[in-house]
Amino acid sequence: MPTYVIGLDFGTNTVRALVADTRTGEEVAACVWPYAHGEDGVVLDEAQPDLARQHPKDYVQGLEESVKGALAEAARTPGFKPEDIIGIGVDTTGSTPLPVDAEGQPLAFQDRFAQEPAALAWLWKDHTAHAEAAEITERAESERPAYLAKCGGIYSSEWYWSKLLHAVRTAPEIFEAAHTWVELADWIPAILTGTADAPRRGICTAGHKAMFHPSWGYPDEEFLGALHPGLAEVRRTLPDQAFHIGQAAGGLTPEWAERLGLPPGIPVAMGALDAHLGAVGAGIQPGVLVKILGTSSCDIAVAPLDPGFTDIPGLCGIVPESVLPGCLGLEAGQSAVGDVFDWFVRRIAPGGPERGSHEALTQGAEKLAPGESGLLALDWFNGNRTVLVDQRLSGGIIGLNLHTTGPEIYRALVESTAMGARVILERFEEYGVSIERVVNCGGISVKNPMVMQIYADVLGRPLEISRSSQTCALGAAMAGAVVAGANNGGYDTFESAAGAMTGVLDQVFVPEPGAVNTYDRLYSLYKRVHDAFGTREGASGMYDIMKELLHIRDQARGASVPPPEGG
Amino acid sequence: MPTYVIGLDFGTNTVRALVADTRTGEEVAACVWPYAHGEDGVVLDEAQPDLARQHPKDYVQGLEESVKGALAEAARTPGFKPEDIIGIGVDTTGSTPLPVDAEGQPLAFQDRFAQEPAALAWLWKDHTAHAEAAEITERAESERPAYLAKCGGIYSSEWYWSKLLHAVRTAPEIFEAAHTWVELADWIPAILTGTADAPRRGICTAGHKAMFHPSWGYPDEEFLGALHPGLAEVRRTLPDQAFHIGQAAGGLTPEWAERLGLPPGIPVAMGALDAHLGAVGAGIQPGVLVKILGTSSCDIAVAPLDPGFTDIPGLCGIVPESVLPGCLGLEAGQSAVGDVFDWFVRRIAPGGPERGSHEALTQGAEKLAPGESGLLALDWFNGNRTVLVDQRLSGGIIGLNLHTTGPEIYRALVESTAMGARVILERFEEYGVSIERVVNCGGISVKNPMVMQIYADVLGRPLEISRSSQTCALGAAMAGAVVAGANNGGYDTFESAAGAMTGVLDQVFVPEPGAVNTYDRLYSLYKRVHDAFGTREGASGMYDIMKELLHIRDQARGASVPPPEGG
Repeated sequence: MPTYVIGLDFGTNTVRALVADTRTGEEVAACVWPYAHGEDGVVLDEAQPDLARQHPKDYVQGLEESVKGALAEAARTPGFKPEDIIGIGVDTTGSTPLPVDAEGQPLAFQDRFAQEPAALAWLWKDHTAHAEAAEITERAESERPAYLAKCGGIYSSEWYWSKLLHAVRTAPEIFEAAHTWVELADWIPAILTGTADAPRRGICTAGHKAMFHPSWGYPDEEFLGALHPGLAEVRRTLPDQAFHIGQAAGGLTPEWAERLGLPPGIPVAMGALDAHLGAVGAGIQPGVLVKILGTSSCDIAVAPLDPGFTDIPGLCGIVPESVLPGCLGLEAGQSAVGDVFDWFVRRIAPGGPERGSHEALTQGAEKLAPGESGLLALDWFNGNRTVLVDQRLSGGIIGLNLHTTGPEIYRALVESTAMGARVILERFEEYGVSIERVVNCGGISVKNPMVMQIYADVLGRPLEISRSSQTCALGAAMAGAVVAGANNGGYDTFESAAGAMTGVLDQVFVPEPGAVNTYDRLYSLYKRVHDAFGTREGASGMYDIMKELLHIRDQARGASVPPPEGG
Repeated sequence: MPTYVIGLDFGTNTVRALVADTRTGEEVAACVWPYAHGEDGVVLDEAQPDLARQHPKDYVQGLEESVKGALAEAARTPGFKPEDIIGIGVDTTGSTPLPVDAEGQPLAFQDRFAQEPAALAWLWKDHTAHAEAAEITERAESERPAYLAKCGGIYSSEWYWSKLLHAVRTAPEIFEAAHTWVELADWIPAILTGTADAPRRGICTAGHKAMFHPSWGYPDEEFLGALHPGLAEVRRTLPDQAFHIGQAAGGLTPEWAERLGLPPGIPVAMGALDAHLGAVGAGIQPGVLVKILGTSSCDIAVAPLDPGFTDIPGLCGIVPESVLPGCLGLEAGQSAVGDVFDWFVRRIAPGGPERGSHEALTQGAEKLAPGESGLLALDWFNGNRTVLVDQRLSGGIIGLNLHTTGPEIYRALVESTAMGARVILERFEEYGVSIERVVNCGGISVKNPMVMQIYADVLGRPLEISRSSQTCALGAAMAGAVVAGANNGGYDTFESAAGAMTGVLDQVFVPEPGAVNTYDRLYSLYKRVHDAFGTREGASGMYDIMKELLHIRDQARGASVPPPEGG
């Protein structure tokens, strides 16, 4: 008897519903619904370029439309019946908190707040709270250093408490009207299961974005209250426990079951961040590093839960069970990968649109041998997330001469991101996280074989490619299969779910020994420049140079001096 | 009674004859004759990309054609008579030595050597002798360090003895057939004055290119003989004295007077390097720095002759009377200036030919305030001539982010060359050379006001522009006026010649205090990166990084490991 699961993937611009076969992970049907509000689903404000919000109505409508669309498509598959769907999983962007009332209804649904951006969902990439992030970091450094140790030493403007602190200061009437603030990843399962008045909180977003840790729960009231009394009030609405994706938020309500055309009561798994469920969909387990390569990169590993595990300096997040139950979740990443190549193509456009396309530059770049250009680049075009955790680092390139070509620079940029990836991988291993395989997913992993070969050569390891191109939605679907359980046609563990539902392509990018050797030499140079500009430890004393450039730039632009975040 | 002088300027692609009015320096007529042989006058060899030669026939024919052309044009000026021409001066490229027989006739004029590249003139930019240059440097370092101290510590592949050593090793039959080798700057005056069998040697080329110094003459036979016995033989043909441009090579022979249509017997000044006579034509004197800004830069200053004068580390050349009689000539320069901007326009062509032209990029760049881009570049795209004297340094740029634009990079490149210029200026002053005024000439100085304003702001000084756009030919003409003497309608000193014949444009680029302040801050960052990558002294330890990149590149290209020149 076949059974099916649904994975819901709430992205930045769209929501996707995937219907997967539990026996194979095969995609039976999928439907993507683009959010209706704002530009590509993101509500912007010209006066505040840092602002990025979403309308919760899009989440509700998108949920309904995408599931119904996917079911309609699945109906064409012989033997498929909606009654055979046994569970639902959810992944979303984050930190994307939204203010809700005591019933868990978004304030944005109330007419009186219809025009208030602060009443919307605060999308992950909203950076209005950068000053507040710096303030939280500073206070945590002196008062609660443990809070910072789990998130790489710096609390980000993208995260839960920064956004709430900015909200209470700039939109007090909204803040006052809100009963609590819920992460999107928690809110979707909560409405589907009728638990929105007391939503379960997921360990993934709580741990990675809100300083939650099983040993202390959410940050304490004293700490939050000193930032603003309003934060202490929100703190009192938060539970002491958080749940992993192997646990259910509840059962699908009869109302939602009818609305979507699904069996009532089927379990809905706790939600988690898209990248984390992407790692699950790529088959993550101890010993496997999953790299999600897109505009930026997300590098996720897991390690057996071990009370003696040391914090890893510079990692964005280290949270028990944030990825898989029973494992420590470890998140690292690069702030820009594909974005760096895109910068060269779109902003610089060497030789014009034709000569300067990704295709043309790749064609020229792949003719070059490793090291042949004489170039070395730094990949910090959007700062450095891991291991330096410094948004105020910038990109660079040396080795330029009068004959340097566009394809040479393009290749050097690709190589620089590969070297940044190697720094992350080595940091994992240095702190005892075993990496036996590297599985890649995300757009770049399937679009550009040259990039993948360079990565294999720079990392000196075979690189595998995830079989699914929808790993986030697949990972969510797997969570649905696990909360359904083996007795109901699902799985008892993620290990068994992964064994059946995930896999890699036959094509493996195998490092070429000569290239590995050359890249080892280039990497040792990269590492020296990396440390010289990026750390205070080196003898080089260039740590302040990139920051001073930004300082001078900001003054030249007439802006106020930026917060010390990262500097 | 008006009198006139002729300046002959033997460039890389053409020869130019200028007829100037001695009273004002005004250009009465000029004629440019493009050399006939090779590509744009340069004989190349596909199998040897470093080879660059010229056919001496072009010099002779060009001399005749350009003078006759200029006289024909001058004849249209009311009152002009060829009989009123009182002297001739000559500037040429260099080091451009040619092998000659005992009569001073080029071997290239003999049928038996007609097909031999080694019998031609070895143009300044011929780099076939890079291995020999390294060998000479090494030997001089251990045996005759004083020789190197006057030319910045490294003997170049472009210079006289490197070329001769390469010739004796690779074309022994030519070398054997030659009586001696003469710099083009000496050979032209010698043939015009019938002294080619024993040509006077000019202090400018001898001192800057052949390790000549008044205190020791040319390098001694022992030193040269140890490199190759053939060099010692050439040494025996060289005189012990060298002459400056205030001295005549002789009088114009009746044959040449008739051939050119000039009065016989008029004095022909000793020749000198084009840049040096360019400085003269721009009005150089103690306290004035002349910057010749083109594809590269040449920075020339003079200081009163003082036996206690210390050598200036990193200067390309310090030679008594190489520029002006009675003064120490000091030559510095940047290996690439306009070439760096051209690289971005031609090689990278941001946005295509239209958006990426010099004009379009300048238009975008001039809208930016100093420091606004957040970028900092290193201008070493063709190595660093002064003060690091290191061909194996490369260009670089830091501060890049995902929003960095083409015009921002263009401006950063301009700023980087201005900062390189400031390093030179500060080096002069640090060693007691007074710089009260900076006079600029060369293409860039008149073509791009934005570049000049940035230079003024970075240097923190008013920048003047030479009135003449043909300063090299004008300087040569002034030498003709000085060797003619005041009694014959010329001048007794270069000071009085300069007072009458040179001047600057009304437009002065005045530094803007706010910009100066910002650039002071950027310069202090530039200097740190400069020292980190460019010197062994800094604590930074990045001296070897650019070299190692070249080493890896050369290996990747399958080339043999390069000579240690500069590394």
